Amino acid sequence: MPRGRLPAAGRPRLADVARRADVSLGTVSNVFNHPELVTPDTRRRVQEAIADLGFSRNAAASVLASGDTRMIGLVVVGLSNSLFVDAARGAQRMSRADGRHLRIATAEDDHDLLMEHMVHLAGTSASGLLVAPLEEIDAAIDRVRRLDCPVVLLNFDPQRADCCRVLVDNEEVGRIAVRHMADLGRRDVLFIGGDDALQPVARRRAGVRAAAAALGTAMRLEEVDVDTWTPSTVVPVVRSLLRRDVADRPDAIVAVSDLLAIAAIEELRAGGIRVPEDIAVMGCDHNSAAWGGAVPLTSVSMEGDAMGEEGVRLLIQEIEEDPAEHMHTTVLLEPRLDARESTLGRPV
Amino acid sequence: MPRGRLPAAGRPRLADVARRADVSLGTVSNVFNHPELVTPDTRRRVQEAIADLGFSRNAAASVLASGDTRMIGLVVVGLSNSLFVDAARGAQRMSRADGRHLRIATAEDDHDLLMEHMVHLAGTSASGLLVAPLEEIDAAIDRVRRLDCPVVLLNFDPQRADCCRVLVDNEEVGRIAVRHMADLGRRDVLFIGGDDALQPVARRRAGVRAAAAALGTAMRLEEVDVDTWTPSTVVPVVRSLLRRDVADRPDAIVAVSDLLAIAAIEELRAGGIRVPEDIAVMGCDHNSAAWGGAVPLTSVSMEGDAMGEEGVRLLIQEIEEDPAEHMHTTVLLEPRLDARESTLGRPV
Repeated sequence: MPRGRLPAAGRPRLADVARRADVSLGTVSNVFNHPELVTPDTRRRVQEAIADLGFSRNAAASVLASGDTRMIGLVVVGLSNSLFVDAARGAQRMSRADGRHLRIATAEDDHDLLMEHMVHLAGTSASGLLVAPLEEIDAAIDRVRRLDCPVVLLNFDPQRADCCRVLVDNEEVGRIAVRHMADLGRRDVLFIGGDDALQPVARRRAGVRAAAAALGTAMRLEEVDVDTWTPSTVVPVVRSLLRRDVADRPDAIVAVSDLLAIAAIEELRAGGIRVPEDIAVMGCDHNSAAWGGAVPLTSVSMEGDAMGEEGVRLLIQEIEEDPAEHMHTTVLLEPRLDARESTLGRPV
Repeated sequence: MPRGRLPAAGRPRLADVARRADVSLGTVSNVFNHPELVTPDTRRRVQEAIADLGFSRNAAASVLASGDTRMIGLVVVGLSNSLFVDAARGAQRMSRADGRHLRIATAEDDHDLLMEHMVHLAGTSASGLLVAPLEEIDAAIDRVRRLDCPVVLLNFDPQRADCCRVLVDNEEVGRIAVRHMADLGRRDVLFIGGDDALQPVARRRAGVRAAAAALGTAMRLEEVDVDTWTPSTVVPVVRSLLRRDVADRPDAIVAVSDLLAIAAIEELRAGGIRVPEDIAVMGCDHNSAAWGGAVPLTSVSMEGDAMGEEGVRLLIQEIEEDPAEHMHTTVLLEPRLDARESTLGRPV
C-alpha cells in the first residue's frame, strides 16, 4: 500500500518546539499566526524554544511567508454514514499531531452546498481541503486551486488524474466477502446489489463476480438489485426466497451495504430462517448505524479512520511541497474482514 | 417551550436579496465579505437586488461594520454519539437558512482540545460558537467572549447563569420511559443506570424515580448501575436476573442508554427470554449506533436536529443584538417517545 513519506529527518518541526516549550502544537501555531490569542508569558516560552532548537528564523519565516494558516477543511457529503464520522476522527488526530486545526463542513447530501463549502473554506484561509463527494466536483476544484488551496479526495475516484485521493479497494471488499463465505463451506451466494452509478456498488459487484468466477464450480452466484438507499426494498427479495424449495435457496447472502444486510436478517428470521445456520448473511461497509442487533453483523471494514489520516498526510505534503515538484498520489486502503455471528454463529 | 423570536417583520433580509438575485445565501454573504470569490456578473446581480429591495446601504454597511463574518462554529465532544450528528444537521440547516457558514470541530473526548477549538475558532473570525461539552468550560467561555464571540451551550447545563443553552428535558426522558411501561401493563421495572456525575444519567434517574413514585403500588422500581461507556457491563446484570425465579424477575427494563439496552436484549435472548413478551426493554437516547437489530429498539428521542436548530437561532440573536440588551435564554426541548418492537411486540 502506498504510504505518505515521512518528513525529512533532522529538520526541526513545530512538534519539537511545542514539546520543549511544554505547550500544545496549537499554541505554537498561534504564536505564528494569531499571537493575540497567546499570553505574553507563553509567547516568550515558545520563542525561547524556537531559539534553543535552532528552529531557524528562516523556517519560522517560511511558515509565515508561505501563507500556510495551518487550518484545513474536511468537506463531507454527510455525517449519517459512520464512514465519514470515522474519517473525521482520523483526520482530527493526524491534524493535531501536525499542529493543524481541522474544520469540518457537512453538505447534507446537497451537491451545490458541498461545492459552496469548498469555495468558502478556501476563501477564508484554509490551507488545504479534504473532500468526500458523491459526484465529480471539477469546477470547485479548479476554483479553490486558483486560491492556492490544494484538494485531496476521499472515498471518490474522480476522472481527472491531477488529484491526490484516498480510496478503499472496493473490488477487494467484494472478493473478501465471497471468499469468506467459501471458507465457511457455503456454495451458493446471493449478492444483493444496487445502482452501479455509485462507485462502491459497481466495484464491490465486480469483486464479488471475480471471486466467484475464480472458485469455479465450488461457488454459484446469483444477483438481485434493490434501492441502495431504502433498506426495506430488501423485504420482497427475501420473501421470494422463502417461497422457493429449501434446496433451491442460497446458503449465503452478501449485501452491498450493512443496512441492507440487517434488513435481510430481520426478514429471514421473521420467516423462521436461522442466521447463520440456514443462511449466512454479511454486509459490506461496517456502518455503525447497522450495529448492535441480536445477530451481530459480519461486514468488511472500510478503514475510515485510516482514510482520514492518510488524507491529511497527503494534504500536508501538497501544502508544503513546491507545486512544480508535487506528484499526485493514490492511496488505496486495504479493507478488512470483520467476522461476527451473522456468518460465524454464536461463540460457545 | 421558549422559542427564539422571529426577525422583525418588514426588515429586508439577506434571504430576500438571494431570492431576487436567484443566487444562494452564501453567495450574497460572499458579496459582502469575500467579493473575490464571486464572479463580476453575479456580484452585479446581487448589488441590483440590494438596490431594488431597498436593503439599505446602512443595513449592508452595518453587516460589514459589525464584524459579523457570518461564520459560526460548532464544537462537539465527539461525533460517535449520533445525537451530535443530528445536532450538526439541524445547525447546518438553520445556518444556511440565515446565509451563515457552519464549521464543525470535534474534540474526540479531549476536554483540552475542545477548549483549544473554541479559542482558535474565535481567534479566526467565528462570529459565534455552539459548544456541546461534557464538563464546565468557564475559562474558555471567558476567553472567547473577550474576542466578542458569544457562546451557546448544547446538551450541557452549566452552573453559570450568563449563557444561553439548549437542553433536552432529561427528567422527562425518565418519566416518559416509566409511563410507557405502565401504559403497556408492566408493573415491575428494572432501571439500568450509570454514573450520576454525567448530567443525563442523574436527571433520567430522577425522572424514572418520580414517575414510579407517582404510580404508587402500580409500579415497583429496582435500580442497578453499570459502566455507561461499556455496554458489556450489562451482561452480568442480565445473567443474575436469569438466575432468579421467573416470578421474581422484572417484566420491564429501562436502560439509561440505547447501547446498554441493546446489549441487555442480546443477553436476554441468548438466555431464552422473549423480548418483549417476557421482558419489555427500552433505551433512552435514540442513538443510531444501536439501531437496526432483529428487535427494533424503543427509545426516547433527544431531538438532536431541533437542538442544533435552536442553538443556531439563539446564537444569531446574541450575535445581532446589543449585548446590553441581550437576555440569556434556556430552551428546554421536549423528548419524544419512539415506540418500536422491543416494547410493543411485532406488528401483525
